[in-house]
Amino acid sequence: MEKAEIGLIGLAVMGSNLALNIAEKGNRIAVFNRTPEKTDTFVVEAGALREHIVPTKSLEEFVAAIRPPRPVIIMVKAGEPVDELIATLRNHLSAGDIIIDAGNANFRDTIRRFEGLKDSGLTFIGMGVSGGEEGARHGPSIMVGGTEASYKRVEKVLTSISAKFKGEDCCAWLGENGAGHFVKTIHNGIEYADMQMIAEIYGILRDGLGLSAKECSDIFGKWNKSRLESYLIEISAAVLKASDPITGKPMVDLIVDRAGQKGTGKWSAIEAQNMGVPATAIEAAVAARSLSSFKIQREAAEKILGLPGEGAIKPASRDAFIADLEMALLAGKIGAYAQGFAVMAEASKEFGWSLPMPDIAKIWRAGCIIRSQFLDDITSAFRAMPDASNLIITPAFSAMVKETDGALRRVVAAAVTAGLPVPALASALGYFDSYRRGRGTANLIQAQRDFFGAHGFDRIDGVDKHHGPWGSGLADF
Amino acid sequence: MEKAEIGLIGLAVMGSNLALNIAEKGNRIAVFNRTPEKTDTFVVEAGALREHIVPTKSLEEFVAAIRPPRPVIIMVKAGEPVDELIATLRNHLSAGDIIIDAGNANFRDTIRRFEGLKDSGLTFIGMGVSGGEEGARHGPSIMVGGTEASYKRVEKVLTSISAKFKGEDCCAWLGENGAGHFVKTIHNGIEYADMQMIAEIYGILRDGLGLSAKECSDIFGKWNKSRLESYLIEISAAVLKASDPITGKPMVDLIVDRAGQKGTGKWSAIEAQNMGVPATAIEAAVAARSLSSFKIQREAAEKILGLPGEGAIKPASRDAFIADLEMALLAGKIGAYAQGFAVMAEASKEFGWSLPMPDIAKIWRAGCIIRSQFLDDITSAFRAMPDASNLIITPAFSAMVKETDGALRRVVAAAVTAGLPVPALASALGYFDSYRRGRGTANLIQAQRDFFGAHGFDRIDGVDKHHGPWGSGLADF
Repeated sequence: MEKAEIGLIGLAVMGSNLALNIAEKGNRIAVFNRTPEKTDTFVVEAGALREHIVPTKSLEEFVAAIRPPRPVIIMVKAGEPVDELIATLRNHLSAGDIIIDAGNANFRDTIRRFEGLKDSGLTFIGMGVSGGEEGARHGPSIMVGGTEASYKRVEKVLTSISAKFKGEDCCAWLGENGAGHFVKTIHNGIEYADMQMIAEIYGILRDGLGLSAKECSDIFGKWNKSRLESYLIEISAAVLKASDPITGKPMVDLIVDRAGQKGTGKWSAIEAQNMGVPATAIEAAVAARSLSSFKIQREAAEKILGLPGEGAIKPASRDAFIADLEMALLAGKIGAYAQGFAVMAEASKEFGWSLPMPDIAKIWRAGCIIRSQFLDDITSAFRAMPDASNLIITPAFSAMVKETDGALRRVVAAAVTAGLPVPALASALGYFDSYRRGRGTANLIQAQRDFFGAHGFDRIDGVDKHHGPWGSGLADF
Repeated sequence: MEKAEIGLIGLAVMGSNLALNIAEKGNRIAVFNRTPEKTDTFVVEAGALREHIVPTKSLEEFVAAIRPPRPVIIMVKAGEPVDELIATLRNHLSAGDIIIDAGNANFRDTIRRFEGLKDSGLTFIGMGVSGGEEGARHGPSIMVGGTEASYKRVEKVLTSISAKFKGEDCCAWLGENGAGHFVKTIHNGIEYADMQMIAEIYGILRDGLGLSAKECSDIFGKWNKSRLESYLIEISAAVLKASDPITGKPMVDLIVDRAGQKGTGKWSAIEAQNMGVPATAIEAAVAARSLSSFKIQREAAEKILGLPGEGAIKPASRDAFIADLEMALLAGKIGAYAQGFAVMAEASKEFGWSLPMPDIAKIWRAGCIIRSQFLDDITSAFRAMPDASNLIITPAFSAMVKETDGALRRVVAAAVTAGLPVPALASALGYFDSYRRGRGTANLIQAQRDFFGAHGFDRIDGVDKHHGPWGSGLADF
């Protein structure tokens, strides 16, 4: 029998969809599931794609069905199940075979697993797959970390199944060990920030201007035809338009404002902190989700404190203000993405990955949740200036910041006055205003630190004197 | 010879000062230093306090000099030196003896060390000491974590050396294992936020109103006589008043605006993230310090982007605006402290500490860097309502939020319009505005998540239907 080009273990929704996608592109694939009945069902549901699928009922059979060196995708629950499966596979695979973890692993676990397999002759790939169930089935964005040689073995299969943007594959090898899962983590952090900023703009439309869900939908729908064109804006318009089949009311108005999170947003904030790279838009978004889950406390606090500020926003021109909201969202996005890319640039140094910034933007343009026209602009900006220290100083984006930051400024000031929370948008503005200021205010902080802790400071005139004339305490003043 | 009540190893500045403080309060103390010459110098410099000090030149001699069960304070560089010293001490100490790490340890290391000593018969205390060199010498704030029994053995010595506020000791046992070092970490996180907010207000005075350092000093000096009375405001006035002996110019104007950090601010942000408790003011402050260190990038970005916004602030009444700044700073502080205490409340549950909130506020009122009148208000608020879910819903602080948040709102709006960065103040405002809002905007986020990931949602009417009518994709719309 013809050998399979690749194998996959774990036929839950994500694994099944990925396997079907692989088969559909004409790649022969061996599949295995711990519960064999699932494998039977999968094959039946595969229909005509059955001809490219080799169902197996034992790991021996599974391994024997794949052409060596064997690439084996594992798609099981993140955490211990992955380690257990790797331990089992070590006994069945041979030198040169490649275990590919396509789940949502923490990149630090991926690094550990990569290192742990080094003396076994096996290699390990940590593969970030974005786009949810639909993406897995019809074209995800694929972020690969591992040795370049192991990537070469699977490149043809992976690029065949990935999303495409203007004919270019949304799949790339990003570096050794945890590079792929790290980039996926930052992708999710940016996704949190992007969604939070949209929610803040929605809050201004709903609570500041008093618009209905339908009116909000129309505005997002219009924006999706312009520079904000993106999957998240598109689905915002869609969900805001939907009516509840039971009551006929707008669906979103009936949904409890308590958002869940699965941890990747938090991971990206923690890694940014670890490296000392500001990621305040991601942090604000993670905090906003946490606060949303404190529903009972919020309701209690509203009773005690009342709603803040003036509530309504009454702009001189509603159309002009809505145009400002569009530009403010664009500006906010720039801040969030600039921070995310800056975190990746630092991680690249810290973990020795040489992360290719233009390629990361490139493979996010389609397939994943944050796919957008905007990412094509980022791709171009980094292609034109690959060693830019920050997205906002590239020619294209510095022009965009100058064009849009006035609107962001007006929107944040209006929202703050009205008492409408805009933590992520405000954090992006604070980032711009701090980043483009050569002379900040940390001189006062340095003076304080020298005063109470003798930490010392540098002088702007270069004079070699690093402590202030404070004496040993306040008594001197 | 009379046995010493306590021992101390490590006679660098902090250790020496702590030992002198202990001796000065009449406690007999044995000291040891790896380099014996240092011990000799220390004894000479101790002067009359010599009578309470037992200098020793070997660990055998040191241990023999202390009354069992022996409390041994170690004050060495955080990290590996602590583990090495503990390993050495295990061979010299006896069952019941207590090793007290008074350095700036990460509380996770403290938990590990506490657990690691469990089968040795020794016990371990992680002790946060705040107040810098001066505090160590004349009265620090002391945060103790360990068994209650081990604390009882050292309580008399520690309370004798701690700072006092209206006669009350700024020293308390806070819980098992890492409780003391955890609380010290959050103290430092709050300190970061407090200092950053002061720096932001300074920036508005300097760059928005065009005031000189001397004029800024006068304003902070005035505020220090009112509700903002605190060590940090006091030293802000002091450093802003100081002149450079070389040039005669205001000292702060000559200091490079690049602030250092030693990691505790970062730790507190990371632990808040780990627990899912919003600490955006601390995060904004840590980010601001990081951005301050990107001096070269900031200067380059200013050349490319120009300074943002209108620059100057021209309030209708300068006096009224300066009064607003005072109230805005007070409001911002409330936000930062509310977040810090919320992080501690969650940690208390997570690590099983029963952290006593009123006591923590109480022991921070004097001795430490954030000491202030304000902390006395917090002590009272938590004493009146020990199980408050958040500081801002206590009667005293909810009244203060209502009184001051209007000023914070006006100041943030003015700064944002002028292009002056206020990331920490804005984050505190965003926190209030989100926390006191029963109906937020996360319903849109839940709708999006259900759309692309079938994550499900709850309905406000309790109907048991947890997915929207989106169909399987955008084609349905």
